[in-house]
Amino acid sequence: MAKIEHDVVGIGNAIVDIIGRCKNDFLIKHNLDKGHMMLVDADRVSLLYKEMGPAVEISGGSAANTMVGIASLGGRSAFIGKVSDDEFGTIFRHDIRAAGVAFETPSSAGGAPTARSLILVTPDGQRTMNTFLGVSPELSPRDVDPKLIEASRIVYLEGYLFDRPDAQAAFRQAADMAERAGREVALTLSDGFCVERHRLEFLELIRHRVDILFANETEITALYSAATFEEAARQAKADAKVAVLTRSAKGSVIFKGDKAVSVPAAPIRQVIDTTGAGDLYAAGFLYGYTNGKSLDVCGHLGSLAAGEIISHIGARPETSLAALAAARGF
Amino acid sequence: MAKIEHDVVGIGNAIVDIIGRCKNDFLIKHNLDKGHMMLVDADRVSLLYKEMGPAVEISGGSAANTMVGIASLGGRSAFIGKVSDDEFGTIFRHDIRAAGVAFETPSSAGGAPTARSLILVTPDGQRTMNTFLGVSPELSPRDVDPKLIEASRIVYLEGYLFDRPDAQAAFRQAADMAERAGREVALTLSDGFCVERHRLEFLELIRHRVDILFANETEITALYSAATFEEAARQAKADAKVAVLTRSAKGSVIFKGDKAVSVPAAPIRQVIDTTGAGDLYAAGFLYGYTNGKSLDVCGHLGSLAAGEIISHIGARPETSLAALAAARGF
Repeated sequence: MAKIEHDVVGIGNAIVDIIGRCKNDFLIKHNLDKGHMMLVDADRVSLLYKEMGPAVEISGGSAANTMVGIASLGGRSAFIGKVSDDEFGTIFRHDIRAAGVAFETPSSAGGAPTARSLILVTPDGQRTMNTFLGVSPELSPRDVDPKLIEASRIVYLEGYLFDRPDAQAAFRQAADMAERAGREVALTLSDGFCVERHRLEFLELIRHRVDILFANETEITALYSAATFEEAARQAKADAKVAVLTRSAKGSVIFKGDKAVSVPAAPIRQVIDTTGAGDLYAAGFLYGYTNGKSLDVCGHLGSLAAGEIISHIGARPETSLAALAAARGF
Repeated sequence: MAKIEHDVVGIGNAIVDIIGRCKNDFLIKHNLDKGHMMLVDADRVSLLYKEMGPAVEISGGSAANTMVGIASLGGRSAFIGKVSDDEFGTIFRHDIRAAGVAFETPSSAGGAPTARSLILVTPDGQRTMNTFLGVSPELSPRDVDPKLIEASRIVYLEGYLFDRPDAQAAFRQAADMAERAGREVALTLSDGFCVERHRLEFLELIRHRVDILFANETEITALYSAATFEEAARQAKADAKVAVLTRSAKGSVIFKGDKAVSVPAAPIRQVIDTTGAGDLYAAGFLYGYTNGKSLDVCGHLGSLAAGEIISHIGARPETSLAALAAARGF
């Protein structure tokens, strides 16, 4: 059996975020669904960029953010995702490696550009994302290095990848490899709309291949077409080995077999930008989980990492999460 | 005489900042002079980028930051500077226009890339800049639109431009045009090293062409090879029509003829990143000046704008300076 070199390897879209503030009117004018991720084409991304206010560019991508969070907590993480050999690709590669995450997926040359997401942050701190995937869905099964999967305790998969067939194949292949190597598979549902686009595929995966499921309130109710969170949670508890359900300010609830653990959100002075809240919660949880902590501690580490990320612009930590966790006694 | 359309037109390097945190050790290891701007070539910028930690990308450039600050205060500003037709050029153009600054200088195609500055922020909030000028010095006299100069109350020139002959020519041409059109010329000395490289040229300009001089303590003492700030200030007072001297936490002092006005720095909870402090002070001062305010009010507006910029990462305001100024009774 391969030697464990990483706590978690994440597979997802490699994205640079372009983050700006806007009023609610802007979302209405451009018919944007607040709090959601929408896929947009090159023309639409150009139009929205032209219309939006000044922005900052910060590396992002859901699973990538999670891997950076794990590294910031002191864990060993790796990432698989596709960038192009352009300036945004250079930024993405630099930032994830500089954060301590192993990232060796080759860049694509001369084709579609590196993915970017226009993220509009409203005064309430909510983020609405418009993602141009560019080269990202060109991630293919041959980009999934079996040695990397076998050398990682957990393979963490981002639901967003389900939006493109080739990336979906890479995703399934990674889950198969992990299973054969005796590793665990974690999945995040990513977005309510994304869940609606791929409900049956996700259900099949959760029932038969996934060990740890991450979802927020919107996603889990979409998955089960449930009327209430409680109803969806009951079904998730039955379907998933471990179900980790996040509820923004209401904290999170974790189910494993008969166990149910409730964890509060971390207290925050002011919510500046919720981009990456779910990603960083997953980072804290998985760091605790791969270090043998109780579900309660895993949840608290998730809350702590999410709390840091929503207190500033961008989905990458601005301070050492390990130092933050130590200061809180974890 | 041309109609006034802009309060201020700025001429400077068009730069995207790449900002990351580092320990003091990093500066020592790479032989970087803390608090200064160093010009670096393509190889050096690649090496430093590889070695530095995760970063964020935010539009910058000294005079450009000042023009954005003026617009944020409700003033009318324009900018002249050179970008390439690459991704960083797109970012720069978007951000300055989205901030409300007129910017029509054509992009350069297929040559050197858009300028970038690797900015290393130490735990004390000080910034150390490593600038790769790329296409920026290709700004030439033909990029200086006479109509734009004539339609602006003040032409604001960035000392950094003196580092390249062609840009220096554009700079002098703009000053000539402004003089002929009866407009005022403002100059910022930009950096202590920059002053040492061009001492005599700067002195000649200040004595004969400049109406408003901006400098910090390091720059003004370098200009006069003075032993103390007081000695340098005495000479600046004699040479410049209006001398605006900033002293970080010690506030600023403004000389005009026999008048001397001292203004305190704005109170700040925590200094996060001093990038752009001088640029935004100049923005506040010039906004007040072009709106006929007293030197004291001009200085307070400078302190207010500088205070906003050092309370977060990056040299572009994160909030409306007009709203901030209104809240403080200006």
